Amino acid sequence: MPQLRIALAQVNTTVGDLDGNTALTVEWTRKAAEAGAHVVVFPEMSQTGYPVEDLTLRRTFADASVRSVTELARRLDEAGCGHVLTYVGYLDHDEVGPRDAAAALYGGEVVARQFKHHLPNYGVFDEHRYFKPGTELEILRLHGVDIGMVICEDVWQDGGPISALGKAGVGLVVAPNASPYERSKDEQRLPLVARRAAEAGAPLVYTNQVGGQDDLVFDGDSLVVGADGELLARAPQFVEHLLVRDMELSGASGSEGEFDGLRVHRRVLSDAPLPAYAASNDPVISEPLSDEAEVWSALVVGLRDYVHKNGFTTVMFGFSGGIDSAVCASLAADALGGDNVYGVSMPSKYSSGHSKDDAADLARRIGAHYRVEPIEDMVRVYVDQLKLTGLAEENIQARVRGMLLMALSNQDGHLVLATGNKTELAVGYSTIYGDAVGAFAPIKDLFKTHVWQLASWRNAEAVKRGETPPIPENSITKPPSAELRPDQKDTDSLPDYALLDDILDDYVEGDRGYYELLEAGFDPETIDRVVRMVDRAEYKRRQYPPGTKITFKAFGRDRRLPMTNGWREHKS
Amino acid sequence: MPQLRIALAQVNTTVGDLDGNTALTVEWTRKAAEAGAHVVVFPEMSQTGYPVEDLTLRRTFADASVRSVTELARRLDEAGCGHVLTYVGYLDHDEVGPRDAAAALYGGEVVARQFKHHLPNYGVFDEHRYFKPGTELEILRLHGVDIGMVICEDVWQDGGPISALGKAGVGLVVAPNASPYERSKDEQRLPLVARRAAEAGAPLVYTNQVGGQDDLVFDGDSLVVGADGELLARAPQFVEHLLVRDMELSGASGSEGEFDGLRVHRRVLSDAPLPAYAASNDPVISEPLSDEAEVWSALVVGLRDYVHKNGFTTVMFGFSGGIDSAVCASLAADALGGDNVYGVSMPSKYSSGHSKDDAADLARRIGAHYRVEPIEDMVRVYVDQLKLTGLAEENIQARVRGMLLMALSNQDGHLVLATGNKTELAVGYSTIYGDAVGAFAPIKDLFKTHVWQLASWRNAEAVKRGETPPIPENSITKPPSAELRPDQKDTDSLPDYALLDDILDDYVEGDRGYYELLEAGFDPETIDRVVRMVDRAEYKRRQYPPGTKITFKAFGRDRRLPMTNGWREHKS
Repeated sequence: MPQLRIALAQVNTTVGDLDGNTALTVEWTRKAAEAGAHVVVFPEMSQTGYPVEDLTLRRTFADASVRSVTELARRLDEAGCGHVLTYVGYLDHDEVGPRDAAAALYGGEVVARQFKHHLPNYGVFDEHRYFKPGTELEILRLHGVDIGMVICEDVWQDGGPISALGKAGVGLVVAPNASPYERSKDEQRLPLVARRAAEAGAPLVYTNQVGGQDDLVFDGDSLVVGADGELLARAPQFVEHLLVRDMELSGASGSEGEFDGLRVHRRVLSDAPLPAYAASNDPVISEPLSDEAEVWSALVVGLRDYVHKNGFTTVMFGFSGGIDSAVCASLAADALGGDNVYGVSMPSKYSSGHSKDDAADLARRIGAHYRVEPIEDMVRVYVDQLKLTGLAEENIQARVRGMLLMALSNQDGHLVLATGNKTELAVGYSTIYGDAVGAFAPIKDLFKTHVWQLASWRNAEAVKRGETPPIPENSITKPPSAELRPDQKDTDSLPDYALLDDILDDYVEGDRGYYELLEAGFDPETIDRVVRMVDRAEYKRRQYPPGTKITFKAFGRDRRLPMTNGWREHKS
Repeated sequence: MPQLRIALAQVNTTVGDLDGNTALTVEWTRKAAEAGAHVVVFPEMSQTGYPVEDLTLRRTFADASVRSVTELARRLDEAGCGHVLTYVGYLDHDEVGPRDAAAALYGGEVVARQFKHHLPNYGVFDEHRYFKPGTELEILRLHGVDIGMVICEDVWQDGGPISALGKAGVGLVVAPNASPYERSKDEQRLPLVARRAAEAGAPLVYTNQVGGQDDLVFDGDSLVVGADGELLARAPQFVEHLLVRDMELSGASGSEGEFDGLRVHRRVLSDAPLPAYAASNDPVISEPLSDEAEVWSALVVGLRDYVHKNGFTTVMFGFSGGIDSAVCASLAADALGGDNVYGVSMPSKYSSGHSKDDAADLARRIGAHYRVEPIEDMVRVYVDQLKLTGLAEENIQARVRGMLLMALSNQDGHLVLATGNKTELAVGYSTIYGDAVGAFAPIKDLFKTHVWQLASWRNAEAVKRGETPPIPENSITKPPSAELRPDQKDTDSLPDYALLDDILDDYVEGDRGYYELLEAGFDPETIDRVVRMVDRAEYKRRQYPPGTKITFKAFGRDRRLPMTNGWREHKS
């Protein structure tokens, strides 16, 4: 059977940066060539980055993207990589409209272009807004192997390109992807790719993007799966990686024509199989991460890329002594190095002694910069001049802290982070223009109970590695408090966090209704209390769109609720 | 020929408020019945409001919407309106998925349901995300007239339902709509509806929603157009209105079956034409507003409904003495009454004497509440404690003002507005968490030159009506300044506004590229300067998503750019 050495370039592109992404592709194709690969597959839209959003509709950008692919083919040839069949993704534009496209580059030329057929338009995807679907498939014969391609969602939907390639006949299918991380997605991906390989009757090479882009994180987890469903290679998650696999493949045999409504074209680059060579025996199957390690890595990578792709190197936020800022600090230290983290303790007259001690302890543990800026004088001017009381007095403390951080950010050039967790954002236990201030909120996707769980996990990992646990034990064990009035505790305003998160998981994540929660056995009074808090928080959040994006699954990009919304789940 | 009296209920619904919208529909159907109407047509999704966004995907809401229609039919009958054939819009949900649906109610029952066929997915629309398209058409015979229906976008696209109804044969087509306002849209609407009436071979009744919903405004402008393209009735813009028109229509004759891929069903409610009656001769063609009046009305209605639908009655914002806050104040007074407007003058040490005089004058002219809260003491604590200089010192002034307004809002319950205009938002001449603080920004869609133009227009209108011009003449004529440092003028940082707005109109609104701007004859250095400012502002805005929604055409819902965006239009 003909042999081919296949490389999967699991790289971290940047949206809009055509020059940078071109340089990245040249660099990784050169690595693939050095590894002796005959084919290298990059992720979906690798030239433009993904998701391009409304930049797709800007014609000057689409034109530049199309030009960049021809230019890339030339540069690969100049770099001595012309003999490596290189699959890249890009934005095309023709008389029908914009296209999510892939191109095959060989010998300094673009030898094939194909447009994505299935366009996802749910959850974080809006591709019907941006692209027109393709209806043509390009099969290239390289060293006697017929190679078909499909793009991302074409793998996730039944029917269409994969089925057509199976009927037309191919020896290999390559699939550039940009498939965002969500919890346990790796458990869906492998069986899906295996099913599609069987449908194509050929091995499937699935290259996924890695890294953070805006409010999405891509985990990589690139795969090679045999026609029989066997896992042949798997890349590690959350890191750039060149995965190389030798394969024995079926020789050429197949037809052109129309299959499943898609038109199949063929082009021969080289007919003769390669002379037989000794395949590499290097192990190429990475183990997926544990649940905790996977979530932690996603948060670290999302934060790091948000900071770096926005042109920053350092971050600043409040160190309160509590668990949320401690976990944010530990994530930031893992993402950027402790020396790039600037913590500010901002005690008020209600701050406890242990808060300041725990904050200082945290900074020492992770090697962060640390300063103390009391807010009493600032708060007093507002309270005295405006005669503030009650909620107005509580909120002004949080807001003075937000403004203090922004002033230091303006002065010193750090990116400000917000430390709110998903539970408090969901129930509205957060101050707009106050603790919600920040460009990025690293733990906005974690319920409070999950924050504690990851803190303990991260400390235990440190102990395993013989390192200092980053998070002060006291921040994990003490009862949480906003410290905005004397002796305040979170439980004054909220149900116990274990119960609260349990209900939120059903109501917010599971999209269950009031009566389903009753059936699940929760106490009617508690359900009513939580549902009211969530509905009210959504309502308030939409009145004053918050100073930080809220992008977690059920509220952010994944849920676009109207702001003035008269609907209430439960009217008692 | 058979006669029918048709009513168009151009009403202002609220998203999510099923009970409120049901009550509204009963009230307006009763008005239609009192006017002797045989048919009344409400806007698209009148039961749920429009746009429902991700609430569409909440099954408990879809179920409640479906139930509300049956309940409405019963309540209409109880109210003595069972004999009026009532077309309403609602959210349906079947085994295929959610549906943008219309229902016909008669005799206490739902006598027909139909699903929207063409789903818009561009600009402000995301309907492929939410709905599945319908493929069935329901024609009802009432008093011997065959009445077909289509929903909104079905009118805007060639082919599909209108064409199928034309081939099947109908005497009248009704079209519930939710078509958002944009400048000069009324000039597109009438020729379009006329073309569709010709395609259907029957008069077309087009009822549009009116009022503000979140970041959209609907202008009404409901129409009746004859099969020959003649305008038969037109409702006034931006107000709720019952438009009633007597019509002589073709009698029943047509077939069932499939036309243009759509299945046509027919149902007879009553075969015999009504006994002949004397048609009303009341004039029913309203004149469209002038350009300035139309924009002013859109801003007033958008602001009023944002405030009221969010449960507020009063608004508060900074009165700086400048043109932007003066125009916002005048809009707010027109929307809510001057007594519901709370102006705060917040002078710093850089504020000029005329700023305070002009602010006080403005408050007197519109009858607003007015107070002076100097910010010097607050700013001094930050500047001294943190040793702020330069931009950090400028920004803290804007931020102290934002926090001061939020504190008063918490204390007294007013909704805070942001007074920024489109020019300064586009070029980034605005402080996040500072002057960008607010739930709603009334003039975010107006370029600076347009703000001046509307100010003069509004004052002239007042003079025409014998009223006091709301905007102090000095606020219109003096050179604009942010007053954040001594003797600062906008022109220190920005090109002349006339030139700047001209370039922005091409670059931002027209989506033209750098080279097209050169061809248009702008000076290369100025283009480069403006393009850089806009690209940088977009970039900064995405780093710190702003505290107020930016929803104007080219940046908000209508343009979703990635935050970490390496693309620059022009690299010099």
